[in-house]
Amino acid sequence: MERAGRMGVAVRGIERADAGAVQRLAPFGVATIHEAQGRTGLLKPAVRPAWPGAAVCGTAVTALLQPGDNWMLHVVAEMIRPGDVVVAACTADNEDGMFGELLATSYRARGGAGLVIDAGVRDVRALAAMRFPVWSRAVHARGTVKAALGSVNVPVVCGGMLVVPGDAIVADDDGVVVVPRERVADVAAAAEARERKEAATRERLARGELGLDVYGMREALAKAGLRYEDGVQN
Amino acid sequence: MERAGRMGVAVRGIERADAGAVQRLAPFGVATIHEAQGRTGLLKPAVRPAWPGAAVCGTAVTALLQPGDNWMLHVVAEMIRPGDVVVAACTADNEDGMFGELLATSYRARGGAGLVIDAGVRDVRALAAMRFPVWSRAVHARGTVKAALGSVNVPVVCGGMLVVPGDAIVADDDGVVVVPRERVADVAAAAEARERKEAATRERLARGELGLDVYGMREALAKAGLRYEDGVQN
Amino acid sequence: MERAGRMGVAVRGIERADAGAVQRLAPFGVATIHEAQGRTGLLKPAVRPAWPGAAVCGTAVTALLQPGDNWMLHVVAEMIRPGDVVVAACTADNEDGMFGELLATSYRARGGAGLVIDAGVRDVRALAAMRFPVWSRAVHARGTVKAALGSVNVPVVCGGMLVVPGDAIVADDDGVVVVPRERVADVAAAAEARERKEAATRERLARGELGLDVYGMREALAKAGLRYEDGVQN
Amino acid sequence: MERAGRMGVAVRGIERADAGAVQRLAPFGVATIHEAQGRTGLLKPAVRPAWPGAAVCGTAVTALLQPGDNWMLHVVAEMIRPGDVVVAACTADNEDGMFGELLATSYRARGGAGLVIDAGVRDVRALAAMRFPVWSRAVHARGTVKAALGSVNVPVVCGGMLVVPGDAIVADDDGVVVVPRERVADVAAAAEARERKEAATRERLARGELGLDVYGMREALAKAGLRYEDGVQN
Amino acid sequence: MERAGRMGVAVRGIERADAGAVQRLAPFGVATIHEAQGRTGLLKPAVRPAWPGAAVCGTAVTALLQPGDNWMLHVVAEMIRPGDVVVAACTADNEDGMFGELLATSYRARGGAGLVIDAGVRDVRALAAMRFPVWSRAVHARGTVKAALGSVNVPVVCGGMLVVPGDAIVADDDGVVVVPRERVADVAAAAEARERKEAATRERLARGELGLDVYGMREALAKAGLRYEDGVQN
Amino acid sequence: MERAGRMGVAVRGIERADAGAVQRLAPFGVATIHEAQGRTGLLKPAVRPAWPGAAVCGTAVTALLQPGDNWMLHVVAEMIRPGDVVVAACTADNEDGMFGELLATSYRARGGAGLVIDAGVRDVRALAAMRFPVWSRAVHARGTVKAALGSVNVPVVCGGMLVVPGDAIVADDDGVVVVPRERVADVAAAAEARERKEAATRERLARGELGLDVYGMREALAKAGLRYEDGVQN
Repeated sequence: MERAGRMGVAVRGIERADAGAVQRLAPFGVATIHEAQGRTGLLKPAVRPAWPGAAVCGTAVTALLQPGDNWMLHVVAEMIRPGDVVVAACTADNEDGMFGELLATSYRARGGAGLVIDAGVRDVRALAAMRFPVWSRAVHARGTVKAALGSVNVPVVCGGMLVVPGDAIVADDDGVVVVPRERVADVAAAAEARERKEAATRERLARGELGLDVYGMREALAKAGLRYEDGVQN
Repeated sequence: MERAGRMGVAVRGIERADAGAVQRLAPFGVATIHEAQGRTGLLKPAVRPAWPGAAVCGTAVTALLQPGDNWMLHVVAEMIRPGDVVVAACTADNEDGMFGELLATSYRARGGAGLVIDAGVRDVRALAAMRFPVWSRAVHARGTVKAALGSVNVPVVCGGMLVVPGDAIVADDDGVVVVPRERVADVAAAAEARERKEAATRERLARGELGLDVYGMREALAKAGLRYEDGVQN
Repeated sequence: MERAGRMGVAVRGIERADAGAVQRLAPFGVATIHEAQGRTGLLKPAVRPAWPGAAVCGTAVTALLQPGDNWMLHVVAEMIRPGDVVVAACTADNEDGMFGELLATSYRARGGAGLVIDAGVRDVRALAAMRFPVWSRAVHARGTVKAALGSVNVPVVCGGMLVVPGDAIVADDDGVVVVPRERVADVAAAAEARERKEAATRERLARGELGLDVYGMREALAKAGLRYEDGVQN
Repeated sequence: MERAGRMGVAVRGIERADAGAVQRLAPFGVATIHEAQGRTGLLKPAVRPAWPGAAVCGTAVTALLQPGDNWMLHVVAEMIRPGDVVVAACTADNEDGMFGELLATSYRARGGAGLVIDAGVRDVRALAAMRFPVWSRAVHARGTVKAALGSVNVPVVCGGMLVVPGDAIVADDDGVVVVPRERVADVAAAAEARERKEAATRERLARGELGLDVYGMREALAKAGLRYEDGVQN
Repeated sequence: MERAGRMGVAVRGIERADAGAVQRLAPFGVATIHEAQGRTGLLKPAVRPAWPGAAVCGTAVTALLQPGDNWMLHVVAEMIRPGDVVVAACTADNEDGMFGELLATSYRARGGAGLVIDAGVRDVRALAAMRFPVWSRAVHARGTVKAALGSVNVPVVCGGMLVVPGDAIVADDDGVVVVPRERVADVAAAAEARERKEAATRERLARGELGLDVYGMREALAKAGLRYEDGVQN
Repeated sequence: MERAGRMGVAVRGIERADAGAVQRLAPFGVATIHEAQGRTGLLKPAVRPAWPGAAVCGTAVTALLQPGDNWMLHVVAEMIRPGDVVVAACTADNEDGMFGELLATSYRARGGAGLVIDAGVRDVRALAAMRFPVWSRAVHARGTVKAALGSVNVPVVCGGMLVVPGDAIVADDDGVVVVPRERVADVAAAAEARERKEAATRERLARGELGLDVYGMREALAKAGLRYEDGVQN
């Protein structure tokens, strides 16, 4: 694996996570996948969906942008294969609206499944109408120029998390999680197992059983020293 | 009343505000109740509903959590009586997703009416689908461990406001307000009076009367020295 | 043009942008108008719609408020003419809920088309139900007093942008843009031209053409030094 | 103990922590006292010293302020006894410069030892020159009015922490910690014991022993599953 | 006065506030001048000195920058006359290090007295060593390009405040205040009067008199309804 | 190079950047090195020195911490070789005081040259007195537990930047920059060249020449369309 953040290069062929394995992640929420892969891979919570209900599961193609400049979002368009999610980082904190309806139209025409960007987006009403799923740090109408080189399909740090081209990306109302491409099948299996277990737990909790008993926590709480006190009787 | 923030204890019986009085608060919005009790009791505006339209009115049971640890949210589940709202504070700023669908299922099964938490939550799509009302500082998929003691049903500071177990909690799209349990009936009466008065005002304003006249502000403005100037005539 | 921020004065007659020209802006989104007027005029992205889908196009009447005090929002009500948007700035950072359902009722009765405020608002559920469009820095139930003078219909700095009474205001899910009253017709013409051009571009992108080709970027990218690399073949 | 945040009242006689016990806290830093009292009592880290090197140890007299209004800082001046630290909270987030050189002159003349305020201060160069210790959320020159009632010597929430009049306050470059008045002697004893233990530890660490050995962590790390890997040999 | 924010223009001759009047402001702190001109003119508190003790008093020459680009800071250098303070705004939020040791060297050689910038600066150790006074929103080493036009010597909004070329700028540890060029003599006179009055007040407070008596607040407090309570006797 | 963020492992031998090459970076400021390596490698500006004047140049050993837990800062102590800088990241946003005087004593005894941490630190007065250089996101007295595994000497994302064990770290008042270990000699050479060039520029600017002429910007400005206007003559 190369370093993150190499500048001035656009990589054409990348090794994508196995498409079948990626699709096994689709039924699960971001929280489940994060837990299933050992509680890692989440982007920071500042990266939020641009419209409620947005959800996506696909493979990452990446762009590294300069502040105030979205040129590389056009370069990456050519690299999109059906099912890809564009993951865009920026070399400095920037909330400009780097992406809007026109690029969404282009990405969708190329088979792009969504966008995750550590910057701003605009045209959010149109994006919602198109049902094109987008996660961003901000909504801002401010447009950008096309003048400074970044890179395409190099490893990037987005929302505080390293994303390597070809990794699996799952995103929903809870945020965005990255699964390294070599771990996708394992994480899918762990998520499936976790989901089965949670279904049983959910049923018990729905019947009124306490997590204290379902998870067998009472002994550990006593050992940790929790004191129960009787307050008022009412 | 004991100090806020005592650690390592779970109090079983608490003195709740009178349920009938609490229900008299239910028709009113947070803004009205805040005004009716003398403009106090609001949590900071960073504590926001997890889904639009969430609303709740009930009595507080409290949990004091450690960062990255939601153990006490299970301990408090056993203390919930129908109509209770769990109010959870944290000993340090933390945006981890302390609460999600499984705990919501459990709380609902025990009669819990909602959650207010000065930390993060997750599974927000599922919470919205369940119509389980939640207010939090953040949405974040990051899960928590169950390893460190906090407390249950002690006074806590949540969103910058002191909450004593048994206080009334009213929350809606505008935020969260706490009414001390001993003041609930008085505040309900004040809110009812305020609402009657506002209805008459609303009607006058809707007819085009000015607040300047409805509230009789013109004299005070003149006394304060407001100068009217004629600008351009168009 | 006078200085921004003169205190203690309410100006009665202002020079509004031509109503016909302002309405030519209505079909366009904030992002388009911002681009059409040379990428200026946007308020900071912290000023957000109070409910999704809010949109407005009108002429500014302005209020300059003191923190914790909404008195001038009543004074400005008398200045509203049909189609006006109230633009309210504050002399210090403040998130109090300066505006709610009652003032919205009053503004609507006077023909007011919306509110943009660099502070907080409340009663957001009622505002959404009324379809009264509002943009604000925060949602907070905390009410305000009516005790300190500000000004009405003087130039103000709102969301970091200078707004002169009579300017055109366009706002939607992407934020808020100000068009100086003397430039409205020109900006409308530029927006119309831009939209025609974008329609053609949108069609080409929707067919799968790349922005690289539609915008003719390949040569500039090469000149800037972008290196294409072949990665893995898969 | 009464509720926090009662409005419109100034309490004249308060029960202060024992002065001798409070002075036993003076040699210790905020971090040590926080640890010694069971890792509670810290204000949020946004409350920072106004000048480097500021340090204080005393008993709290409290003020609850309205935003943009410092009237109660004058009322509390009359309550100051030698060795008191004024702790000021605000009913809403506010960064106005509520306190400056004149009030510091007054407080010092009355025996006041310092100020902790969940708002802004000004004249910081003069405060540093006077060596009057102050902790605040912001430095801002913006002045305040004297028009709205708050309270004096009621319990307040300051920096997210409950402070009861008479509690001990210790503050330094690391922040501010509150010790409940009834616990001061115990916490002082615990701090002294902790300091003795830390002195021995410091000496061992200074000789190059590892914390892994000094604290006996190796077994717990192994049990928790830490795997040591040999990387490159260089 | 022209609009703020015109792009693509550099104005050569500006009308500066009277130099003698400006120098009458020099003895006063930012807080005093802000009060003396009716509590207006302060920049937001996020604009902070780059090194402790920085202070300046001079006339504004202005630059409007694009994010990530400091080209206009070179254009404005040619406009500097002895005693000028460069005031730089940016068309979007940006924390890049727009200014450092080399530009400071250049400005000083031209007679520049300081810099106020609503963006980032770097080389702060060198700036402190040179005693070149700077106020900025951030310290960040990230450099900028010289590629996009802004403007020089047009009115700008900096730190939320309108600054017109030729206005007086006073800045110290408390922040930055702008005095409109036409008001400088009046504000200086008001500041001198205020200072005389404060000197007398300071002396009384230093002798232990209370602000309650010095300012005659007791009656107003009683009228506002402040209740004094006797707490414990100790 | 392995992935960033692997959990539960401590790597003993790492490949450090050449010590001689690293020392060639020491004379340069962070801004210069950032420019010299093509304007990359800076941590976000929120990571600030804990005391003014702190400066360090060394090789990175890394720790990945859990929020509220500093266990791995003890594990990494054993890996420190003279001249190393500990770079600590955290799996979630956390401002707890993870590091203080005792660990600084230990690190120094092992030859550690400094600490960069994307979390909080405490005992800052003692750190300044020891002259132990530290950069952190916050100063907070809140202590941490030693209970949860992270990792040592794996690649980490710190302040938004990827740091690989053995990379060179340079930090000063302007922030922190990372130089990949394989590029250190090249970057040192580029910094030396840049410094020579800047010395000549500095001299010309100090004589009063303008950057417009020194850098030959006038033609580019004209081409970009900058219009010079003559304002008032005074």
